[in-house]
Amino acid sequence: MSELIEGKRPVLEALRTHVPMSSIMIADNLKRDSLVEDILRKARNADVEVKTVRRRLLDEKSERGSHQGVMAKPRPFNYAKLQEIIDAAQAQYEEKGFALIVVLDHITDAGNLGAIARSAEIVGASGIIIPNKRSARVTAATYKSSAGAISHIPLAQVSNIAQALDSLKKEDFWVAGASEQARDCIWDSNMQGRIVLVMGNEGTGLSRLTKEHCDFLVSLPQAGEIGSLNVAQAATACMYEFMRQNRIKG
Amino acid sequence: MSELIEGKRPVLEALRTHVPMSSIMIADNLKRDSLVEDILRKARNADVEVKTVRRRLLDEKSERGSHQGVMAKPRPFNYAKLQEIIDAAQAQYEEKGFALIVVLDHITDAGNLGAIARSAEIVGASGIIIPNKRSARVTAATYKSSAGAISHIPLAQVSNIAQALDSLKKEDFWVAGASEQARDCIWDSNMQGRIVLVMGNEGTGLSRLTKEHCDFLVSLPQAGEIGSLNVAQAATACMYEFMRQNRIKG
Repeated sequence: MSELIEGKRPVLEALRTHVPMSSIMIADNLKRDSLVEDILRKARNADVEVKTVRRRLLDEKSERGSHQGVMAKPRPFNYAKLQEIIDAAQAQYEEKGFALIVVLDHITDAGNLGAIARSAEIVGASGIIIPNKRSARVTAATYKSSAGAISHIPLAQVSNIAQALDSLKKEDFWVAGASEQARDCIWDSNMQGRIVLVMGNEGTGLSRLTKEHCDFLVSLPQAGEIGSLNVAQAATACMYEFMRQNRIKG
Repeated sequence: MSELIEGKRPVLEALRTHVPMSSIMIADNLKRDSLVEDILRKARNADVEVKTVRRRLLDEKSERGSHQGVMAKPRPFNYAKLQEIIDAAQAQYEEKGFALIVVLDHITDAGNLGAIARSAEIVGASGIIIPNKRSARVTAATYKSSAGAISHIPLAQVSNIAQALDSLKKEDFWVAGASEQARDCIWDSNMQGRIVLVMGNEGTGLSRLTKEHCDFLVSLPQAGEIGSLNVAQAATACMYEFMRQNRIKG
């Protein structure tokens, strides 16, 4: 995460949702209204350095022209390595007899990434794997929608999802791809043991290549007339079916 | 829904997410940039009247002072009656042997309301019941997070949730309250037939009074270390368990 956060309310919201920051810059001619006072107080509590800079510097750094005299610099997100997630999952499988890894095949909304991370942390998943291109990365929106959980579940970026799935299969994981077109309902599929759950892009679902690298495809039934399930909601329903089949009582 | 939508991007977003509008007001001295052109084009396509008014009128009507020369007036949301939802659910039960009504006990986030509506439409719920006080109502955020589904599932406001639950019980519905403190896991509870699923407030869960009016309480197991489930995610997982137990294949 490296984009600067611009504007009083966005910076305040980022402090409120515990986005790790290296510093906050405020313009030297900034009027100290109640929002600014709140920012300064929260920055002090979070031990974030506040630098007073010339307004022109903010103008230069601003990408959206909406800094209002306040910008925050988030710390780079600390991504995990794929092997670390695999090792954690194998250790959990040894101990408990089940383990879950979630793979996101080009999810593009940073809020969805956070919402999935929040649920994944709660069901006890060992980690999340995302591609390092054409995919949502961790932003301030991810912290918010994850309610902070993104800091508590390992997230790895890989250059090739298909290769990552092959690595997981060699480690005796079963790779289940969630797809509306799947013939088998998830309730009738075996989600026990070491499972990799693959969720597809918001608009187009799983790519053809990713589907080919899944061991099986599962669908969530849909009884509605018009809608389609949000990917984070679908991921949560699938993760709870994993929990149910493994009788994970928390 | 009666609050005015202020500002170019919010109005554009509301048009994009199909918020029903009675009119859009633009200031007579508004500069026609690309956002404004996009608003005018989308308004024309959606058959929404655009009125040119004096900027001072927008200043007077503005609550947030962020209108940027553009404000939209949404149509009032068309709430259903409780009895209409009950009748629809009974008709579905007669035909299919199961029916679901979702009750939201003082959910306060309009986005969560929309996310729950989206999933409820997809699982085939007959309607959603919310209290008419201290509760999120339908706003532009609801349209967005529901991906438009809020227009396709009946939503009723009631003055008293406990009374509404009693009415539903008299109609032979089983009232299941979702609570982290519930002794019974939802997988072991009977969610078959005519079910009312009650979800609680984002922060405090079900109120004591509401709990007392439930027939039974159900929990979703949580295996994580730190988090709690978002209420819309929890609702979706519970609704899918209802579907699973009733073997609803869509």
